[in-house]
Amino acid sequence: MTPAFIGLDWGTTTLRAYLAAKDGSVIEARRSPDGILAAAGRFEEVFAKSVEGWPDSLPVIASGMIGSRQGWIEAPYCPCPAGLAEIAAKLVSLTTRSGRRIVFVPGLTCNDANGTPDVIRGEETQVLGALANGNGAYLLPGTHSKWLAVIDGRIDRFATYMTGEVYAVLKGHTILGRLMSGEGDDDAAFRAGVRRGAAAPELLLHTIFGTRTLGLFGTLESTALPSYLSGVLIGSEIAAATHDLKSGESVTILASAALAERYATACALCDVKAAIGPENAAIIGLARIARAAGLLN
Amino acid sequence: MTPAFIGLDWGTTTLRAYLAAKDGSVIEARRSPDGILAAAGRFEEVFAKSVEGWPDSLPVIASGMIGSRQGWIEAPYCPCPAGLAEIAAKLVSLTTRSGRRIVFVPGLTCNDANGTPDVIRGEETQVLGALANGNGAYLLPGTHSKWLAVIDGRIDRFATYMTGEVYAVLKGHTILGRLMSGEGDDDAAFRAGVRRGAAAPELLLHTIFGTRTLGLFGTLESTALPSYLSGVLIGSEIAAATHDLKSGESVTILASAALAERYATACALCDVKAAIGPENAAIIGLARIARAAGLLN
Repeated sequence: MTPAFIGLDWGTTTLRAYLAAKDGSVIEARRSPDGILAAAGRFEEVFAKSVEGWPDSLPVIASGMIGSRQGWIEAPYCPCPAGLAEIAAKLVSLTTRSGRRIVFVPGLTCNDANGTPDVIRGEETQVLGALANGNGAYLLPGTHSKWLAVIDGRIDRFATYMTGEVYAVLKGHTILGRLMSGEGDDDAAFRAGVRRGAAAPELLLHTIFGTRTLGLFGTLESTALPSYLSGVLIGSEIAAATHDLKSGESVTILASAALAERYATACALCDVKAAIGPENAAIIGLARIARAAGLLN
Repeated sequence: MTPAFIGLDWGTTTLRAYLAAKDGSVIEARRSPDGILAAAGRFEEVFAKSVEGWPDSLPVIASGMIGSRQGWIEAPYCPCPAGLAEIAAKLVSLTTRSGRRIVFVPGLTCNDANGTPDVIRGEETQVLGALANGNGAYLLPGTHSKWLAVIDGRIDRFATYMTGEVYAVLKGHTILGRLMSGEGDDDAAFRAGVRRGAAAPELLLHTIFGTRTLGLFGTLESTALPSYLSGVLIGSEIAAATHDLKSGESVTILASAALAERYATACALCDVKAAIGPENAAIIGLARIARAAGLLN
């Protein structure tokens, strides 16, 4: 394969650099913990190291938090609906001190029914890379889970659910963590939690308290409690986020294998059809955006 | 008034001691930060100090977390429905090293529709003290808000909502706190948050993220964000907890004046009728329980 460009998937905690062909096929991939938090103040140095030995002449395109106010340069949010054309028209670029030009993908913004804004950065690129038939629902679970709806090849709207971060602080800083031990790999407790959370997502401030009482009364072991709480939160998230899915519509999950499996299990318990998407969605998305912008001739 | 008994409202962070007449009228009240956390390991010493100078001959009755496994002695939970008779039959007592007998009120337990247990300690005494006509809905807001339903003088069921504790950890330990300043006294932002939370309590993991985006886009000032988040959580709590209230049924709020006002404002925005109950409910409740147990002859 002929190297055609360099793609950077540069998030808060991780930097993934790819030497890729025009269609996004990966020739070489590198991964480092130099996300924007760790790399702050030395982005050019981290960039130079991450692409060392790759041809200087190749175009470079980056997505993720590196294009935020806390990143290298701010690429202002592009409003939804947004597809390849809208995003390609809003790319921002800078030239490094060593004369290298880098192009940054903007994040997206949309307003929910209530008029409250929401934002993503990086997930739009993954979804555009994973798009098969140009329509569908996508889930990128994690610290801040993102649910996206794609219509005719454009990201129509999306919503953030703070599931992972809420789990971490409930476990780490509230009374719910006091009876817990272990890290949460009790499958039965996870499933019980998902069912509980999904049955009544509107009661979340109440249902999480069951993590304490089920421990107090000895119904669940201390090692089962983290899984139970995780299940309650994920069940609540899925029930709420899929409320307006058409009957039988499938959700494509984009995540690392373990997390994707966890959410696929939870979706099944919630009667939501789910498929796990490709792991290389980010670099395919970067290739598609770069081509749409005319960067790869 | 003739002193008839000593009542202790002894919670996690505060001890309130009352010298009271038979009907619960307060002759003298004392308050200290020696809740069970601060007083652990020296309950008798703290007790002696808190009742110093009051007649040794009077019966003593205590409610709250002092009767929990982490307290002085465990008074096992009494199952719902529970009124004065059921609670009086489950009192537990101990005799101090100095020969003083102290009677402890049990907490209550109930199972929700899903079979998950819930617990209260102390709130049952306040509600029995505030009871007017023997029926109604009661709210004791706070770190762990408690919603209780009373039927024919007995506490029929209740539910805990972790509203206050969730607010504290979201503000103190998540990305939502990063843009915040101040302590949350922006009334307009609080009201906007209540409306937002109440409109879709099932979306809570999503709606809280609005605290970040409304700050990012400059729609809300940093000083308005704590109030907004508090409103979202309280609105979500009220909408969920009042779901099965009969139309026009009123909720009686038992809390300190400022917190009671805050929740009364929020209830009004949620179209829930609310009245603020008496501040002396705990000592009245202790008097009623003591009389039902034949301790005050």
